[in-house]
Amino acid sequence: MSDNAADDLQPERGSRRRRGGERTKRVRSAVGEQPPFGQARRNMQPPSIVDDDQLDAIHEASVSVLRDHGVEILHDDARRRLAAAGARVEGTRVRFDPEMVMDFVGSAPTSFTLHGRSPEKNLRIGDGHLTFGSVASAPNYVGLDGQRRTGDRAGFRDLVRLGQMLNPVQFFGGYPVEPVDLHASIRHLECAYDVHTMSDKAFHIYSLGRERNLDGIEMARIARGVDHETLEREPSITTVINANSPRTYDTPMLEGIIQMASRNQVCIITPFTLAGAMAPITIPGAIVQQNAEALAGICFSQVVRRGAPVIYGGFTSNVDMRSGSPAFGTPEYARAALITGQLCRRYGLPFRSSNVSASNNLDAQAGYESVWALWGAVMGGADLIFHAAGWMEGGLHASYAKMVMDADLLNMVSTFLAPVSTSPEELALEAIADVAPSGHYFAEPHTQARYSTAFYSPMVSDWRNWETWTEAGAPIAGDRAVRVAGEILAEFEAPPLDDAIRDELRDYVDRRVAEGGVATDF
Amino acid sequence: MSDNAADDLQPERGSRRRRGGERTKRVRSAVGEQPPFGQARRNMQPPSIVDDDQLDAIHEASVSVLRDHGVEILHDDARRRLAAAGARVEGTRVRFDPEMVMDFVGSAPTSFTLHGRSPEKNLRIGDGHLTFGSVASAPNYVGLDGQRRTGDRAGFRDLVRLGQMLNPVQFFGGYPVEPVDLHASIRHLECAYDVHTMSDKAFHIYSLGRERNLDGIEMARIARGVDHETLEREPSITTVINANSPRTYDTPMLEGIIQMASRNQVCIITPFTLAGAMAPITIPGAIVQQNAEALAGICFSQVVRRGAPVIYGGFTSNVDMRSGSPAFGTPEYARAALITGQLCRRYGLPFRSSNVSASNNLDAQAGYESVWALWGAVMGGADLIFHAAGWMEGGLHASYAKMVMDADLLNMVSTFLAPVSTSPEELALEAIADVAPSGHYFAEPHTQARYSTAFYSPMVSDWRNWETWTEAGAPIAGDRAVRVAGEILAEFEAPPLDDAIRDELRDYVDRRVAEGGVATDF
Repeated sequence: MSDNAADDLQPERGSRRRRGGERTKRVRSAVGEQPPFGQARRNMQPPSIVDDDQLDAIHEASVSVLRDHGVEILHDDARRRLAAAGARVEGTRVRFDPEMVMDFVGSAPTSFTLHGRSPEKNLRIGDGHLTFGSVASAPNYVGLDGQRRTGDRAGFRDLVRLGQMLNPVQFFGGYPVEPVDLHASIRHLECAYDVHTMSDKAFHIYSLGRERNLDGIEMARIARGVDHETLEREPSITTVINANSPRTYDTPMLEGIIQMASRNQVCIITPFTLAGAMAPITIPGAIVQQNAEALAGICFSQVVRRGAPVIYGGFTSNVDMRSGSPAFGTPEYARAALITGQLCRRYGLPFRSSNVSASNNLDAQAGYESVWALWGAVMGGADLIFHAAGWMEGGLHASYAKMVMDADLLNMVSTFLAPVSTSPEELALEAIADVAPSGHYFAEPHTQARYSTAFYSPMVSDWRNWETWTEAGAPIAGDRAVRVAGEILAEFEAPPLDDAIRDELRDYVDRRVAEGGVATDF
Repeated sequence: MSDNAADDLQPERGSRRRRGGERTKRVRSAVGEQPPFGQARRNMQPPSIVDDDQLDAIHEASVSVLRDHGVEILHDDARRRLAAAGARVEGTRVRFDPEMVMDFVGSAPTSFTLHGRSPEKNLRIGDGHLTFGSVASAPNYVGLDGQRRTGDRAGFRDLVRLGQMLNPVQFFGGYPVEPVDLHASIRHLECAYDVHTMSDKAFHIYSLGRERNLDGIEMARIARGVDHETLEREPSITTVINANSPRTYDTPMLEGIIQMASRNQVCIITPFTLAGAMAPITIPGAIVQQNAEALAGICFSQVVRRGAPVIYGGFTSNVDMRSGSPAFGTPEYARAALITGQLCRRYGLPFRSSNVSASNNLDAQAGYESVWALWGAVMGGADLIFHAAGWMEGGLHASYAKMVMDADLLNMVSTFLAPVSTSPEELALEAIADVAPSGHYFAEPHTQARYSTAFYSPMVSDWRNWETWTEAGAPIAGDRAVRVAGEILAEFEAPPLDDAIRDELRDYVDRRVAEGGVATDF
């Protein structure tokens, strides 16, 4: 009578019947059952949250900021290059004519391939493909025991293992957690060694000075086993360039653009514009500023090298105006993602968004904020989703369990976006004709032929009935995700790697470590 | 350097500074701070997941099912009416020519007003408005103590109180929980009395036989204080008509359509088509069947009375093929919602979806499944979201805490959908010009003028930093929602009601109870 008295509908399949108790067994082999590595494609036109006139107004406001007020460019060579390209430089302030900005932005590619260490881990950026990266840059992590710890190499390696094993984690957009037990002078070397030997997925460079950029590029080249020319033809490593909002690009960021773009590697230009803090409190105003900063950075990447791969990063969110804490996975964040996506489509640039949550633990808030962020990204038309798996606490900790749960959410996104077929087999008219009114489809050949593959089967969701679930100890999603994470770590196997390449990587690191790495003042 | 080292950004506002500890106080007056009662409007064109040819194929398949195989119509008078309208009747089987179906479906209104007991609680159904209903029909509930109990009147009343107090709960789509301590013969009478005296929001009738329909309609009339003619002009009460899928309408459901449609009240025709159980395992196939059943029911409502308000209900989800349990808030559910929305727009019918989760407790799964369902509904273009607040465990329990958390999610939906303005004030060029590079916006007049209203401030989300949150006992979202629910219940005040109306309702119930209500065989 009522449409939601949804009690168990037991399939009548005799020996195939499975009850809750057997679900555990399935979860134990979760990784073996996951969908294969592969990128989803968006087959639908993303919705528009602003009309064309409004989009024009935002664009015009952004270029007026660049024209009238400009951006601080804290790098002599960058200012020289910009001046030579037509920008107006006064002291450290650089102002841009709109025509110049749009001319350079127009030379950025709309799509390109990001190469993994293994060719089967190559990723198409743009052209409607979705690309998901691991959590990155968290200073802390929460591992299997639920304790929050300062980042260390043990946690870093575990998170790399998880990211390698989980197919929807398609590249590493940085260190999943910052391993502060590795001294800053050599951290980038040992971390790159770990990632390239424990994973065959594309990796990242932190733009923290020229030498680190060069080390990272060289190690990516060695890991791929290619020559310099091939690497320069085939973008193989990413960096995130954050504006120091409002309207400042500092020295290492600009140096990062120079080193990466000049070698045809990927810059992800991402202003961090929290509305009400580093940007206007209104979302359209924050987007105006984000867009001005992004256009300036993207323009500069093309001044360095026309055609270099560059991605427009949107990270506009709001601040809890009571505490000053950043908020994530909010409706304002989703609105910003949709507007940013419209701007990126206007400019013909790939759009990077993120899967974010401010929650301190893996509770309902973590679930709803992450899905808000993911749907904002998907409906915003994001090409690249950073921090797609494992990001918690506004980025202040990486979580093993959240990485597993997010892998489910990413697989759900891919399942949702898969093309709908209306073939006769999918429309199922024969099965419909075959089942009597008030009957059921369990025994239908049409059902039996598809029952194990028809639907996405999540690792974490628990669909057992109340009684079975209660008897099993009433595990909550966070606990189930921890268990799956532990099982995956126990199953970890590093992907194949030529001994010669491993040795060359080790030699490179050892040599650079012996040289002191990159000198620091601490 | 890194875009996610998102540590606390403390606003420098001196006395306005608030830390985590004060957040508690705010939550204590959560209901006083909620946005006012009002409907969101969808200002964006929902995305299309199937193209026009595919939509045609689904439509054609559905009408071929009605033409070639038909539907069981287990009601003599309904079959007579359908035969008189041109359907082919053989025994209890009724087959429909596509032209006849589409002729009648075409006479249903694309939008109408559902009248609340108070005029300010009237709801526009269709025309891009979103309408949210409470959880309904759960056999169990989880209250403030976290214990799951069989439905009773105490739980029923608490959930009505919560729904009345929470502005985003805009109508009651049934009993939030089934109060089985009220005998079935008089339950509908006492429940209608409770809702109409404790709430001024629109209510619902369970179509469980003619007398219950008539009692419910009469009590809605008395509660509104209007005459029969006004009630018949102004739809004021809803019923859900579930097909007994596959392809059967049983006697009370058909009687419900007759009683409600003939009096111009609202039928929500909702096949419960779980893919792989009562419908084909393929989502397009399940939609073909859902659509055939929905069109048959909608057609019949228009056979009863052309122009009667009717809503197309989509409830297609998938089954966990291992356990047979229904799954909700899945990617398949969202795909079904988007296709159903496209069908409804083709037919010019309001579309009802739901906010669902299969989770047994208020964990991350409850959060992510609900948001998946909500975004599927919003992006599917749903006009009416049933079970929008409080639905858990696949509908097997209503939760006080989930109702609060869902109220946040619904307010987030409304915030997300609010029109974007690109006025000069919103674009904030003056503020941008005013803040120096690397400065901040906290002290800007533009910020100060908007700081308390700029962003949606959720009741449940906890954005405190780790240290403050830990000192506060590390409350998880589910616990916070329980606390807020308790505070709301403590604050409950019934809305004004004329004593004469209250007396008339009481007299009606007393008379009907004295008559034995509706006779049952138990």
